[in-house]
Formats: sequence, C-alpha cells, structure tokens
Amino acid sequence: MPRYKLLLEYDGSRFVGWQTQANGPSVQSALEAAILSFCGEEARVHAAGRTDAGVHALGMAAHFDLAAPRPIERIEGALNFYLCQQGIAVLGAQEVPDDFHARFSAIRRTYLYRIINRRAPLTLDRGKAWQVPVPLDDEAMHEAAQRLVGKHDFTTFRHAQCQAASPVKTLDHLVVERDGAEIFIHAAARSFLHHQVRSMVGTLKLVGEGKWSADDVTKALQARDRAACGPTAPPDGLYFVAADYER
Amino acid sequence: MPRYKLLLEYDGSRFVGWQTQANGPSVQSALEAAILSFCGEEARVHAAGRTDAGVHALGMAAHFDLAAPRPIERIEGALNFYLCQQGIAVLGAQEVPDDFHARFSAIRRTYLYRIINRRAPLTLDRGKAWQVPVPLDDEAMHEAAQRLVGKHDFTTFRHAQCQAASPVKTLDHLVVERDGAEIFIHAAARSFLHHQVRSMVGTLKLVGEGKWSADDVTKALQARDRAACGPTAPPDGLYFVAADYER
Repeated sequence: MPRYKLLLEYDGSRFVGWQTQANGPSVQSALEAAILSFCGEEARVHAAGRTDAGVHALGMAAHFDLAAPRPIERIEGALNFYLCQQGIAVLGAQEVPDDFHARFSAIRRTYLYRIINRRAPLTLDRGKAWQVPVPLDDEAMHEAAQRLVGKHDFTTFRHAQCQAASPVKTLDHLVVERDGAEIFIHAAARSFLHHQVRSMVGTLKLVGEGKWSADDVTKALQARDRAACGPTAPPDGLYFVAADYER
Repeated sequence: MPRYKLLLEYDGSRFVGWQTQANGPSVQSALEAAILSFCGEEARVHAAGRTDAGVHALGMAAHFDLAAPRPIERIEGALNFYLCQQGIAVLGAQEVPDDFHARFSAIRRTYLYRIINRRAPLTLDRGKAWQVPVPLDDEAMHEAAQRLVGKHDFTTFRHAQCQAASPVKTLDHLVVERDGAEIFIHAAARSFLHHQVRSMVGTLKLVGEGKWSADDVTKALQARDRAACGPTAPPDGLYFVAADYER
C-alpha cells in the first residue's frame, strides 16, 4: 500500500480541532472526506500534532495510505479542489516509505504564538492572534522563558486531561521577540504536552505585565502542579509551524 | 468646533468600500453610526483615501468635527466599543487644528500589495492577498516597476471612471520584494489615481510571468490608453498603509 505525506496549512478557527469529533467539523474528517471524494478510498489520516479548536497550522505534516497508487500532482490538486472552500490547503505531497509515521517519526515540532500588544481590538488578525491591551515587556518575557528551556517535568504546563505517558519533555528553545506591536513566541521540542505552549505563553504574559518575575516562573515549573500555572493563552494565536523528520 | 483625527485599521472584505453607498455597509457609514451612538452627533467623516470594496487599511487617516469637545480617550474607547464587531479598529485619536483635512492636507500616501505566489489556495490569508499560482520573477517585476517611478501621465493605469482632475501623478517609489512565497509591493505618492496601484500590480504580474518585458511597461505607460494596461489586480491584496501630513 503506498503511503503519502501531506504538508498542510489550515485556518483553525473553522474547526473543532484536528481530531474527528461529534460536535463539528475537524481537519481530519475534512481531509478524509476529500480523499474519499477524490478516489473512493476510506483512508485514515494521521497528523504530527493534534491541534485544538482554533489552533492554526502553517506546515502540519500528515500521512495516509491508499490501496492503489495515484500520481502526486493529482493527489495535491484534487485535495485542494475539494478543500479550498474549507480553510485547508495542501502545500505539498510526496510518497513516503511505509515505516514513515507523521506522528511517531517526528523528531522535532515547532510552534509559533502571536500576541498583538495594543489597546485596539483586532480586525485583519481577528481569531489569528491574542490581543493583549496592557503593555508587555518582551525582554523580560524572553529572559523568563529561558527558565523553561531544557529537560523538565512540565506537569505545571500540562492540561488536566493530557494523555502523554510522561510529563517530562525537553524544550529545545523558547524565544520571545517583538516587531512593533506584535510579539512572536517561537517554541521547539521533540514533542509537547497537551496545552503546553499555550500554558507557557499564558505564564509568560504574567511576566510581561510585571506581575511575575523569572523566579516565579522557575517556582511554577518546580511546583509540578497545574494550579501553579498562569491562565492558558487562547488558541487564536497558536500556529503549528513544522514537524521535522530524520533523513 | 473641535476636529478629531483618527488612525484606522480595517478589514476591507467586510465593506463595499470606504464611501457610503446604497448597496451595503461602508467604513464611512459604520464610523458615522458609531459616532452617533457615542455622542448623539451626526458627524461626517473624511478619509485620506477612499478605498474600494475589499481593500484593507493598516493605517487609514480620517477626520471629523464635533459640536462639543470630548476627551480623546473616550472617543477612542467608545468608537472601538461600537466598531469592534464590524472589522474596524481605532488605533489612535487626536485633536487637530480646524484647517487639517485628512484628504486635502495629506502630502504622501503609502500602499502595500501582497501577492502569495504558490499553487495551493489561501487559507489564513484568504481575502487578504492575491494568490498567483504561476512562478513570478520578483526581480524582473522590481526592475520593470522602476519604469513607473517619477512624474508621468498615468492614464493607462487609471480606472475609466476616475474623477481626478489630472492623470499626471508623481510616483515616489514602487518596490517589489520577496520573502519566501510572499511578494510585497510597496507604493508611495502624494496621491494616486483610482485603481492605480491595482493596475500597476496587474501589469507587473505580466512581467513576473515573463509575458511582458520592462520595455512593454514603458510602452504601456507611454500609450496613455487604458486598453494598454494589464488586468487590474484584485482588491484582496491591497492595503492602505499610511497617510503623511506636514508637521
């Protein structure tokens, strides 16, 4: 059975999340319906990251198997034809070995979180960034973020219903930078816990406001207690940027 | 009568354009309704540029008069309260002398045009950029763009219904630059003719595709004939960036 990898961009505000659910349209079900329309096969699509409702993707990786091989250009063109009204785009497609798995083969995942730090409500970026009206000190946020880099027990920054076997993860980098009113937070790790990026961003926002110090972030991390976390940042500002694989 | 200047951001896809029209919501009428709701006054709002349907603003300047003065913070806050669901945001407000006119006092206007040069349909940038699937040579576009810089009769690049007294305008700069799949076109002039930026962008796209040379752009300009223009680029990618004033 040929296996295909897709590189996907999507507008998460239009979905209940990656995973198929009873309460509304998911990215996964939209893709599976498009594959069925295209070639009549009931494929199961697996993603590198199962994004929550409202979380966007600039470069999500996914894979699926077909019983019969199809030309790559036709897969890409046909899926875009069926998906273009739904807020999902296939940026690229390729055939991959059958031991490739979008989720289990990924060795690194990169996320971006966008904050727009201004009083005025969002217009063009509505649903696509977190508008924070109080002035944020991005340098203090970046400095505090370094307390989270490395191998730690991230229980504090983990959703209560997170299903990961272990709360120990290695955060490769967490960079906070400002460009005018916009603050970009870049995060990379082999894998993340459920809500980890949004929990870290919500906590760094407290630092940016001057309510928390970098030491408070260290204390929250060491507490290994969800209750020690700042408020979780909204999904609007979160983008799954890329998954990296060996070779 | 105190006069107030506003700095506005708006999502043009939600409006029939700046100017009040019978066929749908305009930015001007939304602002005038918000002012009426805020203070009960029937003000007329004037803009630096009367953008078409679908054209966005990152920093539109506008002004209006009130019979009675109001605190700047209240104007800004109240207008944002009434406008926030409509895709218009007041980024700033200030009192200005009564000889200030958002349209007639402007000495320079800056526009940005965004092209996303890829095969895949747009998701997050839908309605906010022009998706061009054929590969574009941005360096050739930039070189050809320089043929349009300076003082010229821009009849070729002017909408048939343009109401400007003269087709002669001085284009200060027209810069084409690429960042990955995205091509940014920056244009600045004291003032522009109706559809001038979109007409220039549509023509430069022909250059990017290799269908036209820089010499063809010069010939089109010299023809002083609307029929010599390339197809007008769609409004989706156009942003009014800023209006500049003396002092």
